[in-house]
Amino acid sequence: MSPIRLAMVGGGPGAFIGPVHRMAAELDGRLRLVAGAFSRDPAKSTLAAEAWGARGYADWREMLAAEAARPDGAQAVAVVTPNHLHFAVSAAALQAGLHVMSDKPATVNLAEARELADVVARSGHLYGLTYTYTGYPMVREAREIVARGDLGQIRKIVVEYPQGWLSRPIEREGAKQAEWRVDPALAGAGCIGDIGVHAFNLAEFVGGVRVERLCADVSTVVPGRQLDDDCNVLLRFEGGARGVLIASQISAGARNGLRLQVYGEKGGLSWSHERPSQLTVDWLDGPSHILHAASGYLGVAAQAASRIPTGHPEGFIEAFANLYRDFADAIAERRPTAGLVPSIAEGVRSMAFVETAVAASRDGAGWVALQGALP
Amino acid sequence: MSPIRLAMVGGGPGAFIGPVHRMAAELDGRLRLVAGAFSRDPAKSTLAAEAWGARGYADWREMLAAEAARPDGAQAVAVVTPNHLHFAVSAAALQAGLHVMSDKPATVNLAEARELADVVARSGHLYGLTYTYTGYPMVREAREIVARGDLGQIRKIVVEYPQGWLSRPIEREGAKQAEWRVDPALAGAGCIGDIGVHAFNLAEFVGGVRVERLCADVSTVVPGRQLDDDCNVLLRFEGGARGVLIASQISAGARNGLRLQVYGEKGGLSWSHERPSQLTVDWLDGPSHILHAASGYLGVAAQAASRIPTGHPEGFIEAFANLYRDFADAIAERRPTAGLVPSIAEGVRSMAFVETAVAASRDGAGWVALQGALP
Amino acid sequence: MSPIRLAMVGGGPGAFIGPVHRMAAELDGRLRLVAGAFSRDPAKSTLAAEAWGARGYADWREMLAAEAARPDGAQAVAVVTPNHLHFAVSAAALQAGLHVMSDKPATVNLAEARELADVVARSGHLYGLTYTYTGYPMVREAREIVARGDLGQIRKIVVEYPQGWLSRPIEREGAKQAEWRVDPALAGAGCIGDIGVHAFNLAEFVGGVRVERLCADVSTVVPGRQLDDDCNVLLRFEGGARGVLIASQISAGARNGLRLQVYGEKGGLSWSHERPSQLTVDWLDGPSHILHAASGYLGVAAQAASRIPTGHPEGFIEAFANLYRDFADAIAERRPTAGLVPSIAEGVRSMAFVETAVAASRDGAGWVALQGALP
Amino acid sequence: MSPIRLAMVGGGPGAFIGPVHRMAAELDGRLRLVAGAFSRDPAKSTLAAEAWGARGYADWREMLAAEAARPDGAQAVAVVTPNHLHFAVSAAALQAGLHVMSDKPATVNLAEARELADVVARSGHLYGLTYTYTGYPMVREAREIVARGDLGQIRKIVVEYPQGWLSRPIEREGAKQAEWRVDPALAGAGCIGDIGVHAFNLAEFVGGVRVERLCADVSTVVPGRQLDDDCNVLLRFEGGARGVLIASQISAGARNGLRLQVYGEKGGLSWSHERPSQLTVDWLDGPSHILHAASGYLGVAAQAASRIPTGHPEGFIEAFANLYRDFADAIAERRPTAGLVPSIAEGVRSMAFVETAVAASRDGAGWVALQGALP
Repeated sequence: MSPIRLAMVGGGPGAFIGPVHRMAAELDGRLRLVAGAFSRDPAKSTLAAEAWGARGYADWREMLAAEAARPDGAQAVAVVTPNHLHFAVSAAALQAGLHVMSDKPATVNLAEARELADVVARSGHLYGLTYTYTGYPMVREAREIVARGDLGQIRKIVVEYPQGWLSRPIEREGAKQAEWRVDPALAGAGCIGDIGVHAFNLAEFVGGVRVERLCADVSTVVPGRQLDDDCNVLLRFEGGARGVLIASQISAGARNGLRLQVYGEKGGLSWSHERPSQLTVDWLDGPSHILHAASGYLGVAAQAASRIPTGHPEGFIEAFANLYRDFADAIAERRPTAGLVPSIAEGVRSMAFVETAVAASRDGAGWVALQGALP
Repeated sequence: MSPIRLAMVGGGPGAFIGPVHRMAAELDGRLRLVAGAFSRDPAKSTLAAEAWGARGYADWREMLAAEAARPDGAQAVAVVTPNHLHFAVSAAALQAGLHVMSDKPATVNLAEARELADVVARSGHLYGLTYTYTGYPMVREAREIVARGDLGQIRKIVVEYPQGWLSRPIEREGAKQAEWRVDPALAGAGCIGDIGVHAFNLAEFVGGVRVERLCADVSTVVPGRQLDDDCNVLLRFEGGARGVLIASQISAGARNGLRLQVYGEKGGLSWSHERPSQLTVDWLDGPSHILHAASGYLGVAAQAASRIPTGHPEGFIEAFANLYRDFADAIAERRPTAGLVPSIAEGVRSMAFVETAVAASRDGAGWVALQGALP
Repeated sequence: MSPIRLAMVGGGPGAFIGPVHRMAAELDGRLRLVAGAFSRDPAKSTLAAEAWGARGYADWREMLAAEAARPDGAQAVAVVTPNHLHFAVSAAALQAGLHVMSDKPATVNLAEARELADVVARSGHLYGLTYTYTGYPMVREAREIVARGDLGQIRKIVVEYPQGWLSRPIEREGAKQAEWRVDPALAGAGCIGDIGVHAFNLAEFVGGVRVERLCADVSTVVPGRQLDDDCNVLLRFEGGARGVLIASQISAGARNGLRLQVYGEKGGLSWSHERPSQLTVDWLDGPSHILHAASGYLGVAAQAASRIPTGHPEGFIEAFANLYRDFADAIAERRPTAGLVPSIAEGVRSMAFVETAVAASRDGAGWVALQGALP
Repeated sequence: MSPIRLAMVGGGPGAFIGPVHRMAAELDGRLRLVAGAFSRDPAKSTLAAEAWGARGYADWREMLAAEAARPDGAQAVAVVTPNHLHFAVSAAALQAGLHVMSDKPATVNLAEARELADVVARSGHLYGLTYTYTGYPMVREAREIVARGDLGQIRKIVVEYPQGWLSRPIEREGAKQAEWRVDPALAGAGCIGDIGVHAFNLAEFVGGVRVERLCADVSTVVPGRQLDDDCNVLLRFEGGARGVLIASQISAGARNGLRLQVYGEKGGLSWSHERPSQLTVDWLDGPSHILHAASGYLGVAAQAASRIPTGHPEGFIEAFANLYRDFADAIAERRPTAGLVPSIAEGVRSMAFVETAVAASRDGAGWVALQGALP
């Protein structure tokens, strides 16, 4: 079985997430990077292409056309540009007959996300969205524990995602990663769009319930910044569960501390990105359980998501690689992804969350319904 | 220097917090329990009195009168009844010329709290409120770090207080501690009044800023219960800091996981009741610091709050005892408590928080100002 | 039931462990400090006596005689002097008809310990030894788990006790606690006698097996010091289990990090003094269990050793108080202590361990039998 | 710069470490697997070759000859067979003009290791040994902290490596990974050779001092097993530091809990494989420091060993990949590896440790000198 041929748009020198996509895609030998429009600067794109043994292009439209014309051309595209290009590149790639794996968020706004959903549906091709945290074995185990009803009905979900790297206005001090993320034209939304969507998706992915209503405090803390850098949201889920979502990029000293707590009638589980290979389940009666990745007592999905024996830590790249592996399996078997790779439906929900929260917070609207998600 | 003579109202057989008050008060030999109206049941009160070597009374009014008349009578009273009696006992004791150490909340409602503030002021006697967590050495250190400006201006405070013990309707299953806590007549408020006030007070105590506005989701999760058992609140502090307060008694599997995070411009600190003897400070630049109780590098207040060498854990009773020791010092030195023992002003603020949050949540009022605190 | 009347020898101003004994003894109201020869300096002894509301004596022999003559005299004595007096005071107190609770080690050497065992036996009075760690609820639970056979046959025990406070020669810099601990005449042995005995006793207490043979590396790291300050010992237990014991007072930066691991055929447990209220059990198959103090699912001994609800940390003083409570129960019920309070038999075993290890290490003897314990 | 062409010997279906080598080698795009004698079974080798897009061979000697003859043949070989073939394959590959990256241990015995050292020296080619743990960023930081003298002179090193997976005789129950590891002919040594060598190497790598003398207890716990499955060793390092090394495969419930503590005059550091991205440094005076991988305040070596921003966990595969990246750099720059990739000198030292410890333990020899290492 030959590897699936992958192209990339974005990810040139200085990028953070492009190299992660490449490492993750190739980790299990299921995909191979063969082409890329890594940068608008032809020299930089060529440099990246040479380093990675791929065909380099300076223009992504040119690349899509050229690869489509080759018998050994790319079969799928990884979209790792700043957010404002996600829609155009993804849509064009799907229309050119390629599968798409897009970095989050799906688009810069809800309208684009809904339009992209139509494009995906019409294309008949696969579209995956790298909500990376769904790729962690113990997140998949958590989802299964909830789905199986071990905790009883879910009553409360708390998800926190503190980062501190935008505590100072580093976008004005030459920090490339910060520059585009705080620019409304390139990023669409700020903290809520960059990491709030991860938190939102994780809560729904594990909790198995959907946000219905919310009350948001989305704000800009660092003076002079145009987009939000801190957001705190009260949630109400279908079925009545309460929730809190906290995402921040001005939590000084925090690194990337995504943490999830899900409470049901009989117990609660918690997962923290700081120790991703373990999952804690606290019971109303009885000792707490710590479940460890790569253990024989885990469910099928979690077990399949580890490559090496228990006690040997796997991390962010491997979680990412699990999404790519699932994506590759679906391509190879000509079937939809099996529910573990986030799809455009999740992309639309996330953008609905972002737009609803930002508007309600700006307007001081209090509790509002989550609007704009697909039925 | 003889120990200060202490009486107690409440705390008879089966009580949780009464014995804690006794152990805490006597731990350092600064106070001695000499009398108590431990129970309305004369036999039970006598039993407790004998066990503790104190004079027993069946009626607290009778006790106040009798002790006031004795040359060796009680000088101070610990109020450890269910909430609905806090006001009456505290006020009567102050008026009888005794100092008061009251369990939280100060009263069952804001009106009583404000009236009690007047009583305290007029009495010229000391009134302390056992927001226990302010007695922990590392909480005091955290307060000092913030006050000293090490973190720069405070931008965000997150305080969580998950408990799970009311996940089932155990008040209908014979659990004495639960029975009165879910009874509006005896408790006043539910989860928010029982532990929400701890979280509120801790956030302000350490953060050094006051809550100005809030948006609350206070709800009852367990069917048939009259008072709230879960609350989630967005906060805005004076000076602009954002905050989130989470308190819950239906977080199944949680024990008593109070956790505080305070973020400033330069770093953030976090303290967790699960490991109370350490305090983590994460810096925007540089390694994280873990400060350990009873270390020579700590501030004066934190150092004074440990009894034994570093690495020897002290816990809840010792934290409680620190409040009593400060209280005893103030009595002995005929001066006000030095800011570390919560006073009636904090009691009023807490009740203002409770009433504002409960009303705003009930009315779907969105953001509202914290109303009713003392100026 | 009136409190048992306790006297103390040692524990005057500047002492660490004397005040701990007092707080622990009185915590549950089962004993009351009534007398003390707190210091050889009459003024200091008087000062301590006044602070604690007790009768002060300058000479412990005088105190024993005087208290024995009073109808309300002390019934038991806490021995908290430097080690070299443990034997004489304990023996005299027992012979004067008092029960004894002695700080560890039992004596300065094995010969004294064996002689004291005879005195105890002849006296018909109770003798307890404060190997404090046996008072922790989760240590008692660990013991019960092992005894019940949950782990299968025990195969390996690792116990570590790192401290760092003697990393520099602070005994020459005015540190009172250090001065006598490094003086052969006052302390008998160094690190191995001060904390190695705790580790030794803990391993046997929980593991339920006795050390038969050992191979020791006992050494003095800080130049100019006469007694050992670091020791590492290989162990062989009866029944074949292997073990390692590490105790050190030159592990710079370590606080009081006693840690125990016990491995059986089916799983292993670990307990750490840094988080004393939890116990981890890792199973060969299945999730790890975390057991929390004061939980309903614990065994009787562990449950009885907590005073307050789960999630409310108790610490060193409470563990100590558990030993005193058990001691008081035994006195009140005129029966031997029930196996949870270490006795002179454990004291003799510990001194046999110290002498065997020190001699074998000095002589380069390799593996030797543990010699001198009681049959 | 084209990737370096890598061949592999071993690593076919069912193998654990072969796939890790492949993923690690290819992760950064610096090497590419082009050939392999993955299994002695031609069908299996072909299967693996196809899956990984490489040329398959059934015989490794044939592969070496064929690849040497191709202009695009392999330039380096990864040796991932059971231990008994390490010597023959490594020596042949070096003699065929290929660089070698060998899994540990270097050989099955000391004589072979010393002979291999000669082969390496004569060959002029690079030889690297995958003591994986030296590839972790925070292990490299620890080494740098010690080397820089921050801790002062090193006084004590404790290294523990508990595993539990051989607690039962699973080698008789069809566990392929266990079968050869307990077979003297295939593995050479048991637990001490499989993971004891990791612990030994880590202690010396970070501590910067060499073991001079040791006293070992190497034993077989599971009945019927021929090789050791548990070992406990007292160490003396050059310069006088003391140490303890514990390695076990019968520590039931343990996963892969390698843990290192290094104590100097001024402080101590500890690193645990359970949280590999952090390093704790405890100081004699002052707060503890927690250093986090991928932070700007780390040394050059640690920073270079992370691929993604701080807070994004990297694990075992990435640590492994760091060794391969250093190896590839050295090949590309035609220079020796820079001290971070373990070499045959470390391989010889490890085998000297194994043979010295096993012999001394068997003979009850007590303290012996580490014999047979290269000068």
